[in-house]
Amino acid sequence: MSAGSTYGNIFKITTWGESHGRGVGVVVDGCPAGLPLCETDIQAYLDRRKPGQSNFTTQRSEDDAVEILSGIFEGKTTGTPISLMVHNKDQHSADYSQIASCYRPGHADFCFDAKYGFRDYRGGGRSSGRETVGRVAAGAIAAKLLKELGIRFLTYTKSIGPVSVDMSRFDEAEITKNALYMPDAAAAAEASEYLKKCMQETNSAGGICECVITGLPAGLGDPVFEKIDSNLARAILSIGAVKGFEIGDGFAVSASTGLTNNDAFCMKDGSMSKRTNHSGGTLGGMTDGAPLIFRAAFKPTPSIASTQQTVNRDGEEISINIKGRHDPVIVPRAVVVVESMAAVTILDALLANMTARLDRIADFYRKI
Amino acid sequence: MSAGSTYGNIFKITTWGESHGRGVGVVVDGCPAGLPLCETDIQAYLDRRKPGQSNFTTQRSEDDAVEILSGIFEGKTTGTPISLMVHNKDQHSADYSQIASCYRPGHADFCFDAKYGFRDYRGGGRSSGRETVGRVAAGAIAAKLLKELGIRFLTYTKSIGPVSVDMSRFDEAEITKNALYMPDAAAAAEASEYLKKCMQETNSAGGICECVITGLPAGLGDPVFEKIDSNLARAILSIGAVKGFEIGDGFAVSASTGLTNNDAFCMKDGSMSKRTNHSGGTLGGMTDGAPLIFRAAFKPTPSIASTQQTVNRDGEEISINIKGRHDPVIVPRAVVVVESMAAVTILDALLANMTARLDRIADFYRKI
Amino acid sequence: MSAGSTYGNIFKITTWGESHGRGVGVVVDGCPAGLPLCETDIQAYLDRRKPGQSNFTTQRSEDDAVEILSGIFEGKTTGTPISLMVHNKDQHSADYSQIASCYRPGHADFCFDAKYGFRDYRGGGRSSGRETVGRVAAGAIAAKLLKELGIRFLTYTKSIGPVSVDMSRFDEAEITKNALYMPDAAAAAEASEYLKKCMQETNSAGGICECVITGLPAGLGDPVFEKIDSNLARAILSIGAVKGFEIGDGFAVSASTGLTNNDAFCMKDGSMSKRTNHSGGTLGGMTDGAPLIFRAAFKPTPSIASTQQTVNRDGEEISINIKGRHDPVIVPRAVVVVESMAAVTILDALLANMTARLDRIADFYRKI
Amino acid sequence: MSAGSTYGNIFKITTWGESHGRGVGVVVDGCPAGLPLCETDIQAYLDRRKPGQSNFTTQRSEDDAVEILSGIFEGKTTGTPISLMVHNKDQHSADYSQIASCYRPGHADFCFDAKYGFRDYRGGGRSSGRETVGRVAAGAIAAKLLKELGIRFLTYTKSIGPVSVDMSRFDEAEITKNALYMPDAAAAAEASEYLKKCMQETNSAGGICECVITGLPAGLGDPVFEKIDSNLARAILSIGAVKGFEIGDGFAVSASTGLTNNDAFCMKDGSMSKRTNHSGGTLGGMTDGAPLIFRAAFKPTPSIASTQQTVNRDGEEISINIKGRHDPVIVPRAVVVVESMAAVTILDALLANMTARLDRIADFYRKI
Repeated sequence: MSAGSTYGNIFKITTWGESHGRGVGVVVDGCPAGLPLCETDIQAYLDRRKPGQSNFTTQRSEDDAVEILSGIFEGKTTGTPISLMVHNKDQHSADYSQIASCYRPGHADFCFDAKYGFRDYRGGGRSSGRETVGRVAAGAIAAKLLKELGIRFLTYTKSIGPVSVDMSRFDEAEITKNALYMPDAAAAAEASEYLKKCMQETNSAGGICECVITGLPAGLGDPVFEKIDSNLARAILSIGAVKGFEIGDGFAVSASTGLTNNDAFCMKDGSMSKRTNHSGGTLGGMTDGAPLIFRAAFKPTPSIASTQQTVNRDGEEISINIKGRHDPVIVPRAVVVVESMAAVTILDALLANMTARLDRIADFYRKI
Repeated sequence: MSAGSTYGNIFKITTWGESHGRGVGVVVDGCPAGLPLCETDIQAYLDRRKPGQSNFTTQRSEDDAVEILSGIFEGKTTGTPISLMVHNKDQHSADYSQIASCYRPGHADFCFDAKYGFRDYRGGGRSSGRETVGRVAAGAIAAKLLKELGIRFLTYTKSIGPVSVDMSRFDEAEITKNALYMPDAAAAAEASEYLKKCMQETNSAGGICECVITGLPAGLGDPVFEKIDSNLARAILSIGAVKGFEIGDGFAVSASTGLTNNDAFCMKDGSMSKRTNHSGGTLGGMTDGAPLIFRAAFKPTPSIASTQQTVNRDGEEISINIKGRHDPVIVPRAVVVVESMAAVTILDALLANMTARLDRIADFYRKI
Repeated sequence: MSAGSTYGNIFKITTWGESHGRGVGVVVDGCPAGLPLCETDIQAYLDRRKPGQSNFTTQRSEDDAVEILSGIFEGKTTGTPISLMVHNKDQHSADYSQIASCYRPGHADFCFDAKYGFRDYRGGGRSSGRETVGRVAAGAIAAKLLKELGIRFLTYTKSIGPVSVDMSRFDEAEITKNALYMPDAAAAAEASEYLKKCMQETNSAGGICECVITGLPAGLGDPVFEKIDSNLARAILSIGAVKGFEIGDGFAVSASTGLTNNDAFCMKDGSMSKRTNHSGGTLGGMTDGAPLIFRAAFKPTPSIASTQQTVNRDGEEISINIKGRHDPVIVPRAVVVVESMAAVTILDALLANMTARLDRIADFYRKI
Repeated sequence: MSAGSTYGNIFKITTWGESHGRGVGVVVDGCPAGLPLCETDIQAYLDRRKPGQSNFTTQRSEDDAVEILSGIFEGKTTGTPISLMVHNKDQHSADYSQIASCYRPGHADFCFDAKYGFRDYRGGGRSSGRETVGRVAAGAIAAKLLKELGIRFLTYTKSIGPVSVDMSRFDEAEITKNALYMPDAAAAAEASEYLKKCMQETNSAGGICECVITGLPAGLGDPVFEKIDSNLARAILSIGAVKGFEIGDGFAVSASTGLTNNDAFCMKDGSMSKRTNHSGGTLGGMTDGAPLIFRAAFKPTPSIASTQQTVNRDGEEISINIKGRHDPVIVPRAVVVVESMAAVTILDALLANMTARLDRIADFYRKI
């Protein structure tokens, strides 16, 4: 609670590290034994959150080479904790004297001081985006395991500032072709122009990320406090800069009607199906077998080069200019973080679901 | 996990009960000792979720008289679990033969069968709105305790269908004057007309609920997985029919810019303050001292009197008509449920926050 | 934490109630769906902790008729929380003015005041043996489920005061024939004489309870903090009056040697077996397939009719005489409590174990 | 659950690592901010579990130099997770072909295979004593914090094989003077002779460790499942090779009587006190202000040089000789592990206790 760096009930991840300590990492506990896993599997995910891939992400040099410190033997998970670490580089170089004493607008500086009495002011400390390295490393493991069970994640940028993807032009292959991870080349081009303008104006942009999960069995999640919706919301809102979460039609349901919003059940190829998917793949907190769809709203990058009004530790009103290179938008780099948190959440629900029925438990133990 | 009926880390609530069992209830564990508490305190909250208060809530007779079964001695909480129960009435009267074998669109019937192999099909079983009786009873306790610390909750209906409150006409006193709990008499009147039309068309409406929390100290919540935003999102999405959650400017931040969205800090009456509150009272997962504001989007009531297409347990496509009286909109009765889940979440964060600093811990133990 | 009335990770029990409130009970959450269950199943366990069955248990009238309030439909568990309650009787009759203001030796009175500022002084409040009603009701469910999987519990009194069972005379059928639950008629007779003497001297006796669990698959438990030994120890030490726990040869191993204490593995009927069972069925925190054996040491009943020295709330040294009828020994009535806590712990480990291996998880989901 | 490498509710530790991976470590989450902490503080504890300090501990070279990877800024804890790591050395050198295919008696080899399908057979894998490096590193932090609040731990070897400390000769200063950590020079000399004999006979010895905790406020712990006794038992039984736990008079209470065992309360220097301390400092699961005393029984080192009978993975009965140098007794090196687990448990209870009373909570928040 007090620091709250552990997430998950069965597949449990504990992240650690600040932007300017020796490194960042994660301990993944409760990973089932027997999953083939090597550093390359994890690196592939980490590389998706790397900066420097376009004009719109920071040019800082971050190698982010992951090391597996425990939990793997002869190329497979052993069931014991998997400790993963990425070393920080050049963590002593910058000059943080300015932000040491003042509270940056849109950042957690003031809240850290209020809660803990002081803070590690270098590069955002624990609230740095670098904390997500641990989440993504864990997410890579969860996603690999889920893939073996036929469950896939498709995550992309849905909008940046006022520019939204036109879903009629949706092209999955396009997602990795543009630096903004948008499934629509035209929207990506337009958003790029918008971001250039933001940068010229020393301003920044927000955006929306969407995630679609397919291959889910029905019945994952629980009817009350462990609803799959509830746990996904928690997971996604735990990502810095997220201010909203919605599942299926989300906020739009508030203006819809029951006749429109209820998804009629039907049979398709001998299986239960739904004619529509307004619910986004969940009913009563459990998966309904349809694709699970959710969105997260990200606020504009709070670090902007413009002069801003604020207050310092001595309670004096001052003006500040935050130096350094900053992403004008968070969403593209956050796409893999969203996917990772979703993967950890889904895997946890999938494992929990194994104990729901006595007949299946009896069948499980009859064979061992 | 498997049923997931416990919520909270320190102030921990465990709800139980179905719509047609002997009753519904909650065990509240971890409530600090010394809070004056009687059944009237809890009944006042429960009465806010009562049906039958207007044309737009069901006319079922539910007395919902709460009994305190444990945890109180000489009018005060003792620190031991507070068990609260409300008996169900007339739970054997209805004819559920139709829904026993088929899956109602928009309901969890199919998911229950997929997960558990069968279900208590009477009146929604565990997914019934009656489950929230336990949440509201617990929320009444949390809110009473928080009130003693100067923390207040104001929760109301923000919109119903296409009709939104005009915030320039916001009138707190109006909230309890209209049956829709709207802080704007004109909007309430317009929404009433809309709901009448829905009922005539055997249709239903969705809506949005907003909650404003004042008096919070800065620093509640944590920087990573126990963000106050994250736990509120989880709490609110655990309420049936909620499909979206947003805090502060929420989804609107995605189209905003850093210059607009960053709240400048300033001094006010010698204390830290902010010139705006786009963040909704939270930065980096911790309260920033400004009012905490969030919204929940509710889907339209899935139970509608119209004929709908669905599938039965034998995999046959069929038409159904769901009998019985149903609320055409969920939001007004859910307002107190949202407030209750928020109160439990805030209290839990407030208790957890006590262990954040060694100097305060040392001070605490020096005196006892 | 603060009150700590929840136990278990997946099969989770939450007890509530004091000796003199309206009742005592338990919410069992996470019970798999499909277990046939009725009140008679639970009553049979509760009856084993009933007083008044011999001269050595209190003559208080306690019917302890259990009511199932939720979680059962058509005679089977539904996977949702099972709420169980037993009403208290005659809870207002006694005169507690004396113990209201003074601290009984051997009781928790002083600690309650130190922790919570005041206490429910009637009949021990939350520390009353009546709290175990909830544990036993939950244990009855866990044991019934485990029985369907071939796992059995045999629990009995191993010693009372200086009188120990002679294991060469061990007779399982004898356990339920004598009021002390001893598997040795001669020891039971001798212990009875000892207890009569204790009662004449207004004194009380301690004792040891032993539990043997058979039919366990190998591999339950985990290698580090969730060792089966560790969780059993926690479960058993959570029973009031228990001051020691040992598994297998227990404290005797401290004087043994590796050559003696190591159990040689062997093959028996084509399966792995051990020639001896000094380990008590657990190695490295996991079950090894041999019977799991543990013991709990109970202190003498602290409520004795003799005059004792103590202190009152005003800090004055005083003498007290505790009135009322008290069991001269706790063990016989605690036997079923020990068994119940063991059953809950074993079931929880058995459910957790289902997620240990990817091949078994893949097999599980392939079929549904 | 599945791997169970996290312990503690508020002050939460997560250990990771095997004997032959890249290293071992721990993430300490929930440590209050503001504790001065450097690597030297932790190293002092780790050095107490170092081998090679006498003839009776293994001569393996283990530097165990700890690195703090996160959570410290300007010499103080920041409230964020403290990641600690010790690199393993020479982890690829040994020949483990023999134990790869067979099950060592007294070890967890068979259980690992039963649970996970295979195991990291090098040097005990996750069940290696090296896993305790993480516990001790965490314990050093907990103990340092508790020391600032006036709480001290004294932990020592109480017996080895048949040789027990004579408490009338108890000499605290002696503990660190002999290699066995015994507070009685004569007993240490006698135990040394006994161990020499064990080694000559390729045998090993068990023993008992005792821990005394002073300076505890009354009221830590809770009345039901979070009893301080219960959590200490869990913590201590989670240490490999522990087969028994007792608090206060422990198993001896089973043969005592109420008149003897009840500790009379009295006043001493104006404060509540007890004339005796049979309870070992806890009543009803909460500290009573007297020193907390508990003991742990350790089995003889299972790794012995003698030929033993066992079974291999193919189900064939075989003889094995386990090569390598092994401690003839575990207790001396385990003393600091016991102390560390106790420190983590006590600190967790101390933090949890802060939320027990509304008056103290109100007082806490009034000042911030």
